[in-house]
Amino acid sequence: MQYKEMSKEELVSLKETLNQQYKDAQAKGLSLDMSRGKPSATQLDVSLGLLDAINSESDLKASNGTDCRNYGVLDGIPEAKQLMADMMGTTPEHVMIYGNASLNIMYDQIARAYMHGILGNTPWCKLEKLKFLCPVPGYDRHFAITERFGFEMINIPMTQSGPDMDLVEQYVNNDPAVKGIWCVPKYSNPQGISYSDETVKRFANLKPAAADFRIFWDNAYVIHHLYDDNQDEILDIISECEKAGNPDMVFEFASTSKVSFPGAGIAALAASEANLADIKKQLTIQTIGHDKLNQLRHVRYFKDINGLKAHMKKHAEHMRPKFEATLEVLNKELDGLGIGTWYAPHGGYFISFDAMEGCAKAIVAKCAEAGVKLTNAGATFPYGKDPQDSNIRIAPSFPTPEDMALAADIFVLCVKLVSIDKILETK
Amino acid sequence: MQYKEMSKEELVSLKETLNQQYKDAQAKGLSLDMSRGKPSATQLDVSLGLLDAINSESDLKASNGTDCRNYGVLDGIPEAKQLMADMMGTTPEHVMIYGNASLNIMYDQIARAYMHGILGNTPWCKLEKLKFLCPVPGYDRHFAITERFGFEMINIPMTQSGPDMDLVEQYVNNDPAVKGIWCVPKYSNPQGISYSDETVKRFANLKPAAADFRIFWDNAYVIHHLYDDNQDEILDIISECEKAGNPDMVFEFASTSKVSFPGAGIAALAASEANLADIKKQLTIQTIGHDKLNQLRHVRYFKDINGLKAHMKKHAEHMRPKFEATLEVLNKELDGLGIGTWYAPHGGYFISFDAMEGCAKAIVAKCAEAGVKLTNAGATFPYGKDPQDSNIRIAPSFPTPEDMALAADIFVLCVKLVSIDKILETK
Repeated sequence: MQYKEMSKEELVSLKETLNQQYKDAQAKGLSLDMSRGKPSATQLDVSLGLLDAINSESDLKASNGTDCRNYGVLDGIPEAKQLMADMMGTTPEHVMIYGNASLNIMYDQIARAYMHGILGNTPWCKLEKLKFLCPVPGYDRHFAITERFGFEMINIPMTQSGPDMDLVEQYVNNDPAVKGIWCVPKYSNPQGISYSDETVKRFANLKPAAADFRIFWDNAYVIHHLYDDNQDEILDIISECEKAGNPDMVFEFASTSKVSFPGAGIAALAASEANLADIKKQLTIQTIGHDKLNQLRHVRYFKDINGLKAHMKKHAEHMRPKFEATLEVLNKELDGLGIGTWYAPHGGYFISFDAMEGCAKAIVAKCAEAGVKLTNAGATFPYGKDPQDSNIRIAPSFPTPEDMALAADIFVLCVKLVSIDKILETK
Repeated sequence: MQYKEMSKEELVSLKETLNQQYKDAQAKGLSLDMSRGKPSATQLDVSLGLLDAINSESDLKASNGTDCRNYGVLDGIPEAKQLMADMMGTTPEHVMIYGNASLNIMYDQIARAYMHGILGNTPWCKLEKLKFLCPVPGYDRHFAITERFGFEMINIPMTQSGPDMDLVEQYVNNDPAVKGIWCVPKYSNPQGISYSDETVKRFANLKPAAADFRIFWDNAYVIHHLYDDNQDEILDIISECEKAGNPDMVFEFASTSKVSFPGAGIAALAASEANLADIKKQLTIQTIGHDKLNQLRHVRYFKDINGLKAHMKKHAEHMRPKFEATLEVLNKELDGLGIGTWYAPHGGYFISFDAMEGCAKAIVAKCAEAGVKLTNAGATFPYGKDPQDSNIRIAPSFPTPEDMALAADIFVLCVKLVSIDKILETK
């Protein structure tokens, strides 16, 4: 029975029972962290071989003869470009290799546009008004960047097939102050939604009012499937933009942070020839080059896209049981109660839960009091403000499957208790 | 005999002989690169053990228990801070560890001040006029950064004890548009000059007209001695600034680029507590953290400052013969001719040569025609413009000592020929 259909007395009685369960749970003194998309220590073990991929006996020359131990090479060694291009579903001539992670590249693209302008356009720091579209719920670190640079961030609701494209088109095609949009097109953070072909094509066919509007296509979970079957695939935005006559409209990002080691991986940008030339002109002032030995280490270890895919299956074996444990508890305990909805994603790092309006903060706080740390409620929205106070991001990757099941038990208990209080307000 | 004292006939005859030697040299079809401060392949071999310092069997936890394979730690693992602090002659609480090289950090400091301002001061992008002091001759990549950001760059002549401090004080203490100065305080690029104690103290005691004036103290060659004796040491700018009541006035930079592997090392910033807090507040938007596995790799390999020092002796054994070969040719062939002056540095990566006024470009071009590539004449000055067209930077590190001697032979030949032409113009 849906909670809303229960009588006041039934709810009060249920609350009493649940409260006792909550106290019992609290008494266990748990300390579980589901706040960030961090792999567990055991999961990281699957990548240890990376550290043996090059050693003092290795040939440390790239395929083109470059000594990876010395200065030089602004945009990456050829085999690293090939590997990252294959991972991103594009071709090496669209790719530049950067440093240890992709968030830095995104910040860097915004910063460069702000300071120096994109392809001869006015630097953003010289403009009065800057706007950025933010599909919600989304990734807090994206929003933190555009907040820091003073953008007005505009919420774009997510649908099952990606951002609400009617709204995106309306803003992008009419307002020259709109300079970009954050996208996690595959296994989105936090919902795990993959953009439909129609969505990708509508992105590629935007007619931006601003010449320097860019789609920030953060393909963070491009090969991060949970299952051998049931894998989502999305269209290649780079070639779709080319076909639509908008080759320069997109910056695509990816890294091996959740493939090899977070923060010690390699990262890549994919973009048009004109964009890459524009970026390199600036980047050559900024750095002599990124860590080529780490590029070589990755290429020697993974060898090619098949090596990457085989490796990701090992990650999935660690991730899948945690997702399944969480979803099992959610299904068993919350299905049919009308106090929350969630997705069962095919990949990525998160489960997104939408509580009844006005309940998310209270649920997260109540979980914390029982030793279960979740991402702050609101974090999945610009300025940390969820207008509905409804969305909660669950990150099942760090705890063990057993701990994850324990944490999920507490989570559903908190959802129930907070929802009952909410409903009782209106009874 | 000084060339200037020779008769026209003597010079013409000498020129003929030298021209024949030059043609013979050209006929050898050499291809030698003395343009950048790159270690040679053989020299890089001394650091190969770094690649064995961690492997899949290693304990990959930092001293404080941090799993270096996972996300987190914005400012570096404790033992990396200790190592870099010892290298820079400061203490770990002043130090943040960054990524693979220090040029990136310098760019980043300028960029951050430009976009967001330093310690609450107006972002530089909002100011009409920006000036930067540039001791000359200096490092072209420094000048490229400040040129890119639209600074008016002001030449400050170098003396044997560092930049002309009367001029520095005059600009810094009176003009609020002066926001910084580039310094390579030890074994300066390209002259190999180390700042005297008086110079460092005068820097620390500046009374800047701009609250956000910063000394950019690029301690790139801090442990890069050529000799076991005859080592230069400089005062610690961080503590000198503290003593002078100017704790926030300096950003110090260093890296292991020429200690372990260029572009695959670790880099550090040292600054005051207030500066570090200000930087971290921004940096946390910019990145999740730098490559901690590479930090661990370096610390495990070098162990401590004594390990670093012992390692640098191995580098010196490679560098010294090249410097000596070059200096021997310069001394033997040019001493007393009045057509050039040079320094014999105790460390660093360069020999700086001052030709007769108006001769540097022609000498560099003539060397190139005989297969010897030097850094472009003018590169050691802002905007690539040496007002005297006199300074040439020689980078002896990359060729073998034998090739370096060959290259030096050609260099002195070109100096002689171009100087004769110059003198003949006035005869």
